[in-house]
This record gives sequence, C-alpha cells and structure tokens, in this order.
Amino acid sequence: MHTLSEALRLVMERAAPLPPADRELIGALGLVLAEDVEADRDAPPFDKSLVDGYAVRAGDLQGEERWLRVSEEITAGRLPTRALGPREAAAIMTGAPLPEGADAVVMVERCRRGDDRVFIEPQPIASGMNRLTRGREWKAGEVVLRRGERLGPAHLGLLASVGRSGVLAVPAPRVAIVPTGDELVEPGQVPGPGQIRNSNAVTLHALAVEAGAKAEVSPIAPDDPDRLRAILARGLEANVLLITGGVSAGTRDLVPAALERLGALKVFHKVRLKPGKPLWFGVGPARGEGTGALVFGLPGNPVSVVVGFLLFVRPALDVLAGRPPRRSEVVSRPLGQPFTQRGDRITYHPACWTDPDRRAVVPLDGAGSADLRTLARADGFAIFPAGDRVYEEGEVVEFLPLR
Amino acid sequence: MHTLSEALRLVMERAAPLPPADRELIGALGLVLAEDVEADRDAPPFDKSLVDGYAVRAGDLQGEERWLRVSEEITAGRLPTRALGPREAAAIMTGAPLPEGADAVVMVERCRRGDDRVFIEPQPIASGMNRLTRGREWKAGEVVLRRGERLGPAHLGLLASVGRSGVLAVPAPRVAIVPTGDELVEPGQVPGPGQIRNSNAVTLHALAVEAGAKAEVSPIAPDDPDRLRAILARGLEANVLLITGGVSAGTRDLVPAALERLGALKVFHKVRLKPGKPLWFGVGPARGEGTGALVFGLPGNPVSVVVGFLLFVRPALDVLAGRPPRRSEVVSRPLGQPFTQRGDRITYHPACWTDPDRRAVVPLDGAGSADLRTLARADGFAIFPAGDRVYEEGEVVEFLPLR
Repeated sequence: MHTLSEALRLVMERAAPLPPADRELIGALGLVLAEDVEADRDAPPFDKSLVDGYAVRAGDLQGEERWLRVSEEITAGRLPTRALGPREAAAIMTGAPLPEGADAVVMVERCRRGDDRVFIEPQPIASGMNRLTRGREWKAGEVVLRRGERLGPAHLGLLASVGRSGVLAVPAPRVAIVPTGDELVEPGQVPGPGQIRNSNAVTLHALAVEAGAKAEVSPIAPDDPDRLRAILARGLEANVLLITGGVSAGTRDLVPAALERLGALKVFHKVRLKPGKPLWFGVGPARGEGTGALVFGLPGNPVSVVVGFLLFVRPALDVLAGRPPRRSEVVSRPLGQPFTQRGDRITYHPACWTDPDRRAVVPLDGAGSADLRTLARADGFAIFPAGDRVYEEGEVVEFLPLR
Repeated sequence: MHTLSEALRLVMERAAPLPPADRELIGALGLVLAEDVEADRDAPPFDKSLVDGYAVRAGDLQGEERWLRVSEEITAGRLPTRALGPREAAAIMTGAPLPEGADAVVMVERCRRGDDRVFIEPQPIASGMNRLTRGREWKAGEVVLRRGERLGPAHLGLLASVGRSGVLAVPAPRVAIVPTGDELVEPGQVPGPGQIRNSNAVTLHALAVEAGAKAEVSPIAPDDPDRLRAILARGLEANVLLITGGVSAGTRDLVPAALERLGALKVFHKVRLKPGKPLWFGVGPARGEGTGALVFGLPGNPVSVVVGFLLFVRPALDVLAGRPPRRSEVVSRPLGQPFTQRGDRITYHPACWTDPDRRAVVPLDGAGSADLRTLARADGFAIFPAGDRVYEEGEVVEFLPLR
C-alpha cells in the first residue's frame, strides 16, 4: 500500500498539460494562455483625450487672455477635420483624437462656453495635460501577454483590444463521472431495501466544475460486467474518468477488472489514507491526440470521494489545465479542541474554522466517513499523521481548506 | 456629486434577493438555498457496515475459539436473507446492511477464510465496531439544511441523499451587457481612424461570470437614439443591465436620455471616485415579477469599468443572489514604494502584491485609466483617499484584491 505522498507522485507523473486549442474569448475565462500575443497596432492609436473638455495649445494660455475660438466638436469615433490654429480650442470627448497642433485638454468643468468661443478658467496648463500620447500603452509588435498567463477579466479585455476574438489556450479538462453499483438509485427515487441514493455524482460534478473542468455525469453503471464495461468505455474518452464505488476489497468489486479489460493500466490500488484507502488509479489506453484518460476509482462513501478529489484529482486537473497544482494550499493552525487520532493511516478529518479570521480549527464530531451532513458544515479537513496519539488544544496541525 | 459611500448606499438600498425558483441540483452550485430541507428517511436506513469484512456477534469472540461458520454473503444493495445465529459470521461489503443478531464487523484484512468457515484473528472486538447504526447521520423529518446556506459540493450531495433532484434556491442573476458608441468596433475588426475595439464587453462578461451571474453580451449599440433605445429595452429585461460608454459629460452621451425614455429612473449620475466618476445608476421600470433591472451606466474606459464593477455591481449581484455583499473584502497593507496622490476624489490605483505572502502592495506605473495592460498585471487596487498627499513607503493603505 502506498503512502499518500508516493501515491500523489505517481498521479502527478502521469498528468501533463492538454494540447492547446483555439478558444473564443467569451468562454476562455480561467484558461491558461498557450501563445505569446503581440499588439497589432499602437495603443492608443492616436494622441487621445483623457477627459471631456477642450483641446488647446498650452502655449496660448500662459498669459491673461482666457478666451479661445471654438474650431469644431470632436466626438469619440470621429476624427478632427482640421488642425488647431493659434488661439483656437476644439470641444473634445473622452477618448477622442486630439487635433494636430493641440497638446493639452482642459476639463469641461473648468471651461465656460459662449457660442463660438470658450472661456478657460485661470489655471496652470502644461503641455501634455489630459492627453495620452499614441503608443503610450503599447506599440505595434510588442508582446502584451505571454504564454502561461491565466486569463482573467482584464487579460480577456486586453486580448480583445489587440484584435483577438479567440486565442490559443490550454482547454478546460473534460471529466466523465461514472457512479457504479446495484445498491444505487437516482436522487429522485425511493431506495428499496438495502439501497442508497446516488449522491456522489452530483458532489463530484460540483467539485469538478469548481476546479474549472467541464464535467458530465453518466447513468448509474450496474454490477453487470458487460454494461459496466460499455459505460466505462465511454468515460475513457474524457481526459479524466472518475468512478465511484466498486473498488474496495468486496467480492463484487468489478471496476478494476472492467478497466483492465478496456486496456487501462493500473498504477496503484489503495493508499495509506483515511478516509479513502481503496483508491484505484490508472491510465486509459492512448488515443489519437496523445495520452489516455487519467482514471480514478474512488471509494463509494461520500467523504472519501471529497477527500480523494481534493488530494488527487484536483491537483491533476490543475496540471492538465496548465496551472500550478493546488495541493500546496494546506495551512497550519492550532486546534481549538483536543483530538484523538487512532490507526496507521494519515487522517483527513472534517473541521471548521473557529472564527471568521480563521485563527484555529475544530475537528467536527461526525458519524464517520459517510457523513455528508458533517461535511456540509466543514470548512475543510484537519490532517493527523498516522499513529495513535492525543492532540491537545492549541497544538498546531495542518488544515486543507475546502473553499 | 455623491461620495463613494453615499453612492454605494443608494445602490444597495435598491438591491434585494431575487424571488426563489426551482433549480436542478446539477447547475445549483453556488446558489443560496431558499427552503429548509428535511430528510425523508433515516440515514443510514439500516445498521450498516463501515468496512469490507465479516459481520459477527461480538459476544461470540470473547474466548479462545476464533473460527465461525459463514452464513451468507451480503453485498451492497442486497439484503441479509437470515438472522445471524450463534457462532456464525456473514461476509459483508462496505455499506451493506448487517444481518439481525450481528453487532460488529471485523475488517477482511483481520480474517482468514476457509470454505464455509472464517478465522477471526485474535483482537479486541467490541459491540458496535465498524457498524453505523440506523439514523446515526440523520433521522426522518429532521432538517438537514436550512435556507440561506450557499450550496457547495457537499450540500448538493446531501440534498441528493435526502431524495432531492432539485431545490428551491435564489437563482443566479441575469446580467445584460450593452456596449455603446460609434467609436467601437468588435475585437476581430480593424478599427477605422478614431475608432477603438470593444474590449469592455468581454471584460464585463468575465467579471459577471466570476461573480456567479449568467451574462449575455448584446451587439454594439450605435449613437442613434432609436437603435440605442431598442437595444437598451431588451437589456432592461435582465436583472442587471450594464452599459459601457455614453454616460460622461460629452455632448453625444445619449444613454441617460434613452434610459429615461424607457421608464428607467435615475438614482444618481457621477461619483467622487477616480477612475469611474461618470457612473450612472438607476432602476428600470417594474415588471411582472417585481422590481425593475438595476442599471449601471459605466464609463467607457476599461479600468473604470473594472473599478465600477467591483465597487458597485459585484456587491449588488451578491445581494440579488441572496449572499452577503463582498465590498468588505478590503485588506490593509503597507506600501512597498511611495505614491503621490492628487485630486479631490478617492482613487483606486492598480497595484500588485510585493510577494507571495501578500505582505505589502506596490502601485503600478501605468498609462492612466484606460490601461488594460497594467490592469492585467495588477492583483487589485490600492485605495488613496481624496486630497493631495505623498504616501511614504511603509504607510498602511487599503487594498481591494481583484481575485
């Protein structure tokens, strides 16, 4: 049985960024840029006004005389029709191009208009005031964004402003979710004797979406080798296949056998981890575009599913999406109350922050690794190394936040 | 002209949670629950095994004799067919129901099977070991989630497990984005003289999606009163209408007039804020379901758009979605270098963290409020109160993080 860090290393060795693909800007939020992007022209493409007001020649306004003749009105999107002559001003809107000869703009609030003239209130007027010169933001041919940037709102706006309606990016990983087991019924159904509802699929779907993936849930795969294999075969077409149930040591655990018949290679089965020990990890058969799906067989109980996702699947999704993996987001905090750890496996125990400032953590009493209600109250997991030991209040432990 | 806090108060006074609606669980991630949810049955619905192994009567294993007769195999989803007699054990899978008479389960790793018998390794065996009793997680009729909870992955799993395939929730706000102005062309086009590309729509779309809204971008509205009004009329059908451009003091700023002709009431126009002064805020005409759209006329320049969104639109979206508003996410940090503040408006200046631990912030040199490239490098905005003053390195300022 592997330790957690060995198992994680084996997963990460097999995760690599997906091949870049063209993506529309709308829909590229959060993706990682896979090309260097150059500006196609200067920005601004002309000397432009930063305010609504009057474009002037600063030299005209160094003396007592404050009246200038209005030459024209320049609205945004329109060009000046003529150069500014001595003692002339052009009414101008924010963003509009300055006329030739103008070297400053006076805010409209500091001017008084009278028919074809304008009075400029006495004030210091320097050349360049309220003017953004051509190319001041960037010049044609300059690289404005480099590959590897994660695309946020401002990056997308920047791409649009240099003429891109789409961009080469690492695509969002596609995740297939396959719930398995004759004991499962869909949430809207009433379970028969011995049956439970399929809650893991919706939990995993939400976790995958939160992690930036595109997720799809398959129907429940029954404990029938042929039908199970057919559903898993479709799942292997995704970048990541998440299976719940069917991987523990029980006699009817058909998933590993079905996966191996489909050409998936087992990398490991079982991790010294609580909850979540019976994790199966392997790689699907290689496809046209390259590597096969990363396949995670997660135990059937809900808390194991969440722990397994956060510890193994999320960092793998990060790497597939071209991002730095996020397992490192563990923080250290004192315990707000004692905790008794038992057993030979590192334990991830649902826990809450004690206060809004997140100064300490309190492990939650729960009903074991199946307890979704405790998990819904949790802010994350307190981490206790293997080995029987009582942790005292105030002892510092590691904590993996859920959000 | 309003101060920032007055303006924000005027916006928040008009924001109220949207009427609850039924939502499928898949797609309800991040929504706020609008009902108390009761469990429909006990969980677990039977005494169940927490491990793969053998269900036993703990009393049988207090002596020397370690061999028990195997009565049957109970897989998950199947019911025991008979009660466990004295000195009997039933092979059982994780999650399966214990047979009547059994009160503990021994892990399969601590047992050795021989045909119809099983040897239980010497170990302390207490009644209740590896058993989760019926109703231990929750009982039928108990409220397992209360209205007001924000639905994360574990909440959604919990809803599925109590039999819900959908839920009453505050829906995601619908945001319409209307870029305006003859000076705009779409990103894929080459701007003519005096024109610029429409970058704000894609930026706002991404900001709205990040804030949990459903956003839609309209075609560019030209500076033609009739066509502008037609496009704005459609936008007023959303919960929030975001307009870029057309609200500054320039003579061709047609947006306020068009909105008022459509029955939208102006609440304020202009905020003592830099960048972003010419913000127009109003409320659309009331509709069947209740209140009219919240309408934000944002200035045309890209950095004003982002600042206006974070300061006014995002907190309003939070309230519409039933969440606590997020403007409070401002932090205090020392400056990593000096900054010269000028003017009578509070200033939001793009700035970076100095280090991964976010110990200090450095204002970025940029080309003014239109500079998307500087904004793409920024981690947020350093906030400088109105008034001319030089801020020294090490002085503590407020900082609004972008992410």
